[in-house]
Amino acid sequence: MNDETIFQKILKKEVPADIVAEDDGALAFMDVTPVSPGHVLVIPKGKTGQNLYDTDTDAMAPVWRMVQSIAPRVARALGADGFNIIMNNKAAAGQRVFSPHVHIIPRFEGDGLKSWPKIERRAEEISADAAKIRDALKES
Amino acid sequence: MNDETIFQKILKKEVPADIVAEDDGALAFMDVTPVSPGHVLVIPKGKTGQNLYDTDTDAMAPVWRMVQSIAPRVARALGADGFNIIMNNKAAAGQRVFSPHVHIIPRFEGDGLKSWPKIERRAEEISADAAKIRDALKES
Repeated sequence: MNDETIFQKILKKEVPADIVAEDDGALAFMDVTPVSPGHVLVIPKGKTGQNLYDTDTDAMAPVWRMVQSIAPRVARALGADGFNIIMNNKAAAGQRVFSPHVHIIPRFEGDGLKSWPKIERRAEEISADAAKIRDALKES
Repeated sequence: MNDETIFQKILKKEVPADIVAEDDGALAFMDVTPVSPGHVLVIPKGKTGQNLYDTDTDAMAPVWRMVQSIAPRVARALGADGFNIIMNNKAAAGQRVFSPHVHIIPRFEGDGLKSWPKIERRAEEISADAAKIRDALKES
């Protein structure tokens, strides 16, 4: 089996990347196909699955810590007016590389990137969704 | 000064919310204006600023832990095919309520929500961005 992702190869330094931060548990490097100037990816060093569906909290904790630690400075370094933290889990959510990675996306006033539109959903439908979720959280 | 956000009022139980999970450090509840069925928000219980620019890592750690713990089950409860984790920091990034909150957004094949387009950015421009970021991370 040879299904290593490009990010796993970057971790092993088998593929070059423009690294901006590194510690025991996480690595941060430039996205080579950015959606915004300064677009950075942060990946875990520990054992993981493909995304949050099959990756331990312990493996991801250093990633969230690094994201929070560096993201405001990443944004400031680029003169950005804000930033998004985004993680896509499974293809239906826009995931394209199937090992866990978190995006830091600097944002600029008037950059034209749009938030997703609200859907029509009545209060009783939202309550029914909540009941399903509470049931699912009880089970495990 | 009376600039408490709606989420801080929800934390104090001064405003009702459809809560799906709660522990010592974080609270998860339904977004009343969802972008997708099952859209959940997770907020910290500790002392925070407005977003990741002015909030301690310690206050957010329980949020990231809860997000990771519940998100796959939130998505499964709704029969979703994936999910996004999103955090918007400052108005330019789409933040509308100015206390820290993380979105869990279940995603469905063909739901029409689009990832942001890639920008044109040459390798040397990305390298220059990386250098600025490394400098900014060195300073503090």
